[in-house]
Amino acid sequence: MDKASISSTEGKAIRCKAAILRKAGEALVIEEIQVDPPQAYEVRIKILCTSLCHTDVTFWKLESGPLARFPRILGHEAVGVVESIGDNVDGFKQGDVVLPVFHPQCEECKECKSPKSNWCTRYTNDFLSNTRRYGMTSRFKDSFGEVIHHFIFVSSFTEYTVVDIAHLVKISPEIPVDIAALLSCGVATGIGAAWKVADVEEGSTVAIFGLGAVGLAVAEGVRLRGAAKIIGVDLNPAKFEIVGKRYGITDFVNPALCGEKKISEVIREMTEVGADYSFECIGLASLMEEAFNSTRPGSGKTVILGMEQKAMPVSLGSYDLLRGRTICGTLFGGLKPKLDIPILVDRYLKKELNLDGLITHELSFEEINKAFDLLAEGNSIRCVVWMDK
Amino acid sequence: MDKASISSTEGKAIRCKAAILRKAGEALVIEEIQVDPPQAYEVRIKILCTSLCHTDVTFWKLESGPLARFPRILGHEAVGVVESIGDNVDGFKQGDVVLPVFHPQCEECKECKSPKSNWCTRYTNDFLSNTRRYGMTSRFKDSFGEVIHHFIFVSSFTEYTVVDIAHLVKISPEIPVDIAALLSCGVATGIGAAWKVADVEEGSTVAIFGLGAVGLAVAEGVRLRGAAKIIGVDLNPAKFEIVGKRYGITDFVNPALCGEKKISEVIREMTEVGADYSFECIGLASLMEEAFNSTRPGSGKTVILGMEQKAMPVSLGSYDLLRGRTICGTLFGGLKPKLDIPILVDRYLKKELNLDGLITHELSFEEINKAFDLLAEGNSIRCVVWMDK
Repeated sequence: MDKASISSTEGKAIRCKAAILRKAGEALVIEEIQVDPPQAYEVRIKILCTSLCHTDVTFWKLESGPLARFPRILGHEAVGVVESIGDNVDGFKQGDVVLPVFHPQCEECKECKSPKSNWCTRYTNDFLSNTRRYGMTSRFKDSFGEVIHHFIFVSSFTEYTVVDIAHLVKISPEIPVDIAALLSCGVATGIGAAWKVADVEEGSTVAIFGLGAVGLAVAEGVRLRGAAKIIGVDLNPAKFEIVGKRYGITDFVNPALCGEKKISEVIREMTEVGADYSFECIGLASLMEEAFNSTRPGSGKTVILGMEQKAMPVSLGSYDLLRGRTICGTLFGGLKPKLDIPILVDRYLKKELNLDGLITHELSFEEINKAFDLLAEGNSIRCVVWMDK
Repeated sequence: MDKASISSTEGKAIRCKAAILRKAGEALVIEEIQVDPPQAYEVRIKILCTSLCHTDVTFWKLESGPLARFPRILGHEAVGVVESIGDNVDGFKQGDVVLPVFHPQCEECKECKSPKSNWCTRYTNDFLSNTRRYGMTSRFKDSFGEVIHHFIFVSSFTEYTVVDIAHLVKISPEIPVDIAALLSCGVATGIGAAWKVADVEEGSTVAIFGLGAVGLAVAEGVRLRGAAKIIGVDLNPAKFEIVGKRYGITDFVNPALCGEKKISEVIREMTEVGADYSFECIGLASLMEEAFNSTRPGSGKTVILGMEQKAMPVSLGSYDLLRGRTICGTLFGGLKPKLDIPILVDRYLKKELNLDGLITHELSFEEINKAFDLLAEGNSIRCVVWMDK
């Protein structure tokens, strides 16, 4: 990082390239935009690389409702370097390697100070603003001066973005930046769900619905906890054969080959009475129900990690629930970003945490629309987009 | 207890009175029946008193399906004295005061030996048999020799019944028998849900849907844990004013007076962002959903104690779930009967556990049908039926 070039832009608007979503479901358009300087409690960062997560695709398709907004800069899994800081910013300086994260941690509210949950009471209930402390005020404009909307307080499909310090985590520069990007959303969510939310213990049986980056990270999390049987559920057997086995997945269920049996019946048969834990990492209400029905009565626990793609409700049999089953959802795997991401980075650097093989594709920024196609085809686990290539 | 009279019946069939359900929803008919001697692992007990629980009413109304069976002897909250024992019965002898319980504990399976749940893997999945180890074999016949069905392995609306040792708990004879009866189902379920399932901590906010015996027992459980705000929800304000306040309930919501607001909206307003814990003690899917929606995002936990009266599914907003909420169900409040009921008896005898005012009505066995009317009217919390009066 060239410090001289950083300081030359401090306090000024930066003109740079960004991939703009102008209409739901259409290809992103790379345009020159203006990124304003950070205000108090904000940091402007240069994105090094970003990866595409299913939540980007969900919002890319979203045509209407309060969450649909255009023009907009999507992207929320990324790693960057601090270019400049606003007033009242402690703990960040130019040149720091940072992860922007969609999930806030104000560090001051009751929940942020409690070990009980990662639900920052002060901020988490607002998903709609552009900037965390300034409502609909945006730091982005296009070349005609039109406001461009932010996306879940990150917007990483741009060379520069502005992020509130409640959404920023400083990390060790020793970790490869593409691996670091994975830890800013999907992989952290999966490992957190296994460790913090489910709190899986040695010898457990586990079913994982969806072997994308989140599901494979769940597998890594439960493998490290000593799970005895890890059943992967996916329509693509290659995700089990090529990558899943490296993450400790012991058994595979292809829903397309279950015949007249429900997935939950197959899993109950494979686990005698049901899995101790199940994880839904796709975002389909029908699979959330199957995940729930796959668990054992008495103590089975289902964790929902996927954002339902059409906001459909989940329907649970009341007697199935009464028979001692638990279901819960989690954002960011129950992790407090500033506290827990550095721990994951540290465990990766100590070679305790395996994250090999999750990055299946790499693209230049100009090729960003290909990342959407790769994810839709189901062959990509994570596609990293390099800003400078 | 007259030991001489006990020994005179040992090994022989006993003729006694029982209240028989011959057709769904019809008045029980008190008839003379024959109660066979206990087989191996079984104990024949003389019922001292029994109380009516909502689950009896649910099955009383049930017209069809595998769980509906006639003629049958209902009743499952009771206290009795051992009249005689079968082979292979350890730990019980003539004259012991015992509670028959619908929830089994074999003491030998993996779950019974684990602290993780109270779900006896060996037995709990069979709800359909008459006797625990002998399938549809019954110990009851009417005066014409027709088989009378058991009810959830207890059948207490009879002077004598036969219970498997997996469903029997020996208790201290010091506790008043009517109070003891309450601990065989509803009250134990409520306290267990507060302590074992929700594990409520000091300073929590709690919403309790339904202020019957189960809901009031939840209140007693969370009061002893130091809950800061306990909100009772019931259509009958007298349950709050007359009894609820004695159980530490601090606030009351009458759904009939919520106007256009949902109960969950009212509770969220009363608790800033939602209750830390909610308990559904009624058995209506719509209220299970309201209970869930009453809890705070991030860490809110809903416990379902009521058996859905029409087996309706529970529909949960997938985003509401994703926002860090948990819902779980429990049978018998997560308690292991043989281990935990004696602890509750002990805490009652030490005056730590308040169970005053739960018994609102007392009837003779001849009057048992009145107990159904009292519960349906919503004025009775628990109605105790004395067998010898």
